Amino acid sequence: MVEKRKPIPVEDAVNKVMDLAKKGKKEMVPIEEAHGRYLAEDLIADHDVPSFDRSPYDGFAIRAEDTKNASSDHPVTFEVVGEIGAGSLFEDKVKPFQAVRIMTGAQLPKDCDAVVMLELVKEHGEKDNPLIDIKRTFQKGDNISFQGEDTKKGTVLAEKGSYINPGVSALLATFGYKEVPVAAKPVVGVIATGSELLEVEEELVPGKIRNSNAYMVLAQIEKAGGQAEYFGKFEDDFEACLQVTKEALSKVDMLITTGGVSVGDYDYVPEIFKALGAEVLFNKIAMRPGSVTTVAHTDGKFIYGLSGNPSACYVGFELFVRPVLHTAFYRRAPHLRKTKAALGADFPKPNPFTRFIRAKIEYEENKLLVFPSGLDKSGVVTSLAAADALIVLPGGTRGYEQGMIVDVLLLEDFQGSEWPWTNIVQSYR
Amino acid sequence: MVEKRKPIPVEDAVNKVMDLAKKGKKEMVPIEEAHGRYLAEDLIADHDVPSFDRSPYDGFAIRAEDTKNASSDHPVTFEVVGEIGAGSLFEDKVKPFQAVRIMTGAQLPKDCDAVVMLELVKEHGEKDNPLIDIKRTFQKGDNISFQGEDTKKGTVLAEKGSYINPGVSALLATFGYKEVPVAAKPVVGVIATGSELLEVEEELVPGKIRNSNAYMVLAQIEKAGGQAEYFGKFEDDFEACLQVTKEALSKVDMLITTGGVSVGDYDYVPEIFKALGAEVLFNKIAMRPGSVTTVAHTDGKFIYGLSGNPSACYVGFELFVRPVLHTAFYRRAPHLRKTKAALGADFPKPNPFTRFIRAKIEYEENKLLVFPSGLDKSGVVTSLAAADALIVLPGGTRGYEQGMIVDVLLLEDFQGSEWPWTNIVQSYR
Repeated sequence: MVEKRKPIPVEDAVNKVMDLAKKGKKEMVPIEEAHGRYLAEDLIADHDVPSFDRSPYDGFAIRAEDTKNASSDHPVTFEVVGEIGAGSLFEDKVKPFQAVRIMTGAQLPKDCDAVVMLELVKEHGEKDNPLIDIKRTFQKGDNISFQGEDTKKGTVLAEKGSYINPGVSALLATFGYKEVPVAAKPVVGVIATGSELLEVEEELVPGKIRNSNAYMVLAQIEKAGGQAEYFGKFEDDFEACLQVTKEALSKVDMLITTGGVSVGDYDYVPEIFKALGAEVLFNKIAMRPGSVTTVAHTDGKFIYGLSGNPSACYVGFELFVRPVLHTAFYRRAPHLRKTKAALGADFPKPNPFTRFIRAKIEYEENKLLVFPSGLDKSGVVTSLAAADALIVLPGGTRGYEQGMIVDVLLLEDFQGSEWPWTNIVQSYR
Repeated sequence: MVEKRKPIPVEDAVNKVMDLAKKGKKEMVPIEEAHGRYLAEDLIADHDVPSFDRSPYDGFAIRAEDTKNASSDHPVTFEVVGEIGAGSLFEDKVKPFQAVRIMTGAQLPKDCDAVVMLELVKEHGEKDNPLIDIKRTFQKGDNISFQGEDTKKGTVLAEKGSYINPGVSALLATFGYKEVPVAAKPVVGVIATGSELLEVEEELVPGKIRNSNAYMVLAQIEKAGGQAEYFGKFEDDFEACLQVTKEALSKVDMLITTGGVSVGDYDYVPEIFKALGAEVLFNKIAMRPGSVTTVAHTDGKFIYGLSGNPSACYVGFELFVRPVLHTAFYRRAPHLRKTKAALGADFPKPNPFTRFIRAKIEYEENKLLVFPSGLDKSGVVTSLAAADALIVLPGGTRGYEQGMIVDVLLLEDFQGSEWPWTNIVQSYR
């Protein structure tokens, strides 16, 4: 019999999920493998950067006061008493009118307080008595990178939950993280359901389609930073399905089923939730596509019943699975990043429910334009390939014209939103 | 002795590199591992999608003409003669005033031409003689997803060189790609140079710094889609360095050295290029940071001498290494994506040379704002961690004020630019 389901608003659904989302575990990985992960601890500078006064150029370290009478008419001659390669030290005394050849990055001799760039001096003298002429005055501190100028010891350089990009990798190396504390990747299992599904390697036969959602979701899990595990396709037998689900649950941190959560009769997923004693957080959402997205929770684990519809499945993942993963990664902004864009094309359909439209961002000068990518039928898989954003049109609106400002959720972004669900744009120019 | 170097414009430098960049090799990977790679062939639909007329809803398949007299006052009764689960077929004849229960995604019986949604019918009758009442008219084609409606056979769904995102993974599965032809990952070797460098696990000592560039570049290689291999740090001995370089070159497709290409004396890299007989494409560029970036080429392989300066090294990679990798991936737009943004803060420094400033994109309504991320000293590593864009200020400009429109290159983007170097914004509001 067809079960009556009560749709809840999108933000309520996300809220119910986030109430149960938990921070993840920490693990150590070698720095070479840390890129693309999330920091499990604040990255704090344990020393000043630079950790000593150093030269930003190749040149000569001098005492600035010795140049006070220098001019192009009256160059001052310095005796070059040594040289300092990067990584070396010059520990002798530097006396008045002496200079030390210094390389980029090398530590300044303690008696010197300025650096003269190589291009600004005239070298002369003998090989065993090199001299330079300086034709202008220098001030104390000229051309020095001072200790702590970049970063003071104790500064939080990247917060717990930060995405480890190449810049963060450089910081980790600077501060000696041979091993990096990162958030462990939750293992997310995927089971496909639907007797219409063929495996990817099977030939097409009438009435059937190949299973594309499972591979899409596996990619979404990886993109979101999780570890995906595919458990194949449900059999057409309830007991077998229940067994597979139990086994999968024992091996994963979260489980996703795709397909089989329509209002149709041939759907084991609700029964499985019941047999597992899972708490169903919701099974209908006031949104399109993805209205039949179901989320349940049992023994501290989420079980998702995502729609069999490719777009509905995609949206369901991004709205309800991704923020749970990003909470496990200690992200402060676990949701898709929200911004605004001008609609690049009319969207005349009325929206009784909140609508998510697969879309592509373009730039016009410094403005964001957004175009629906392909057809907006929820079965359409091709429009997902080109999408880098979802347009959000709130329920109760009557359609939109080109040029109107709408909310968009960015799909290719590493920053996120803390909570994108307030102040959804209704309709204005 | 200090070698004289002639700086060339950035676009000329990029051009010289791209003239030698080659398309890569193809390899097959299982679909589960294709996410994040680049297609080595066009993805062409080898069948219509849907491949048959199907129902987008749970409901009843009927002959539309039978409803022509239906109204709320005069419902028309249909006999339910069967049901079709998704993946199943109904091959019997459907006669006038007969209906077939149909599930979402199932193929329409050949005699039917419309679907009535479940919610719109009244079910009655006996278990062995189920009946439904329909209270309105339906037109031929109502509520049918037609064969080929999403995609016609023969359509190019994703071009060679496309980034394989979750949507593309779904397409690959739909069209039976158990194995996916992707561009092979070029192996990119990294060698650190500079006697000031400590390894990441070593304690800091006066005058020395930890090697951060190598780890940054390893992460940049991965981010750009290559396979990174670290060969450690050069010894302070020319013959040893040459040996390491030769050995590394024999194992990689491209080689990057970081550090050691300043105008200083203690630099083996130019000598190594000479000893290898490598063609030096350029060794000085009219840009900041990164003016001493050197690119050489030998035996079909690039060897990069990136600056020891973290920001210069970062920029050198993104400008000169990334597009070579993306050419190997068959990308049509191998360069960083360029767009425009309003400066969020004054940038008063004059720019005798083209300047690249590490920056962060923010959104204000539907407009892009860009803020320099941290100090703009080229030794500053912390500003890279927060950067998701590079501001490009052309040479010969006198500084910029908040609100002026500038060019930005996006660092977190999967689209790219075909050629970002024309029409660089000079200075306007």
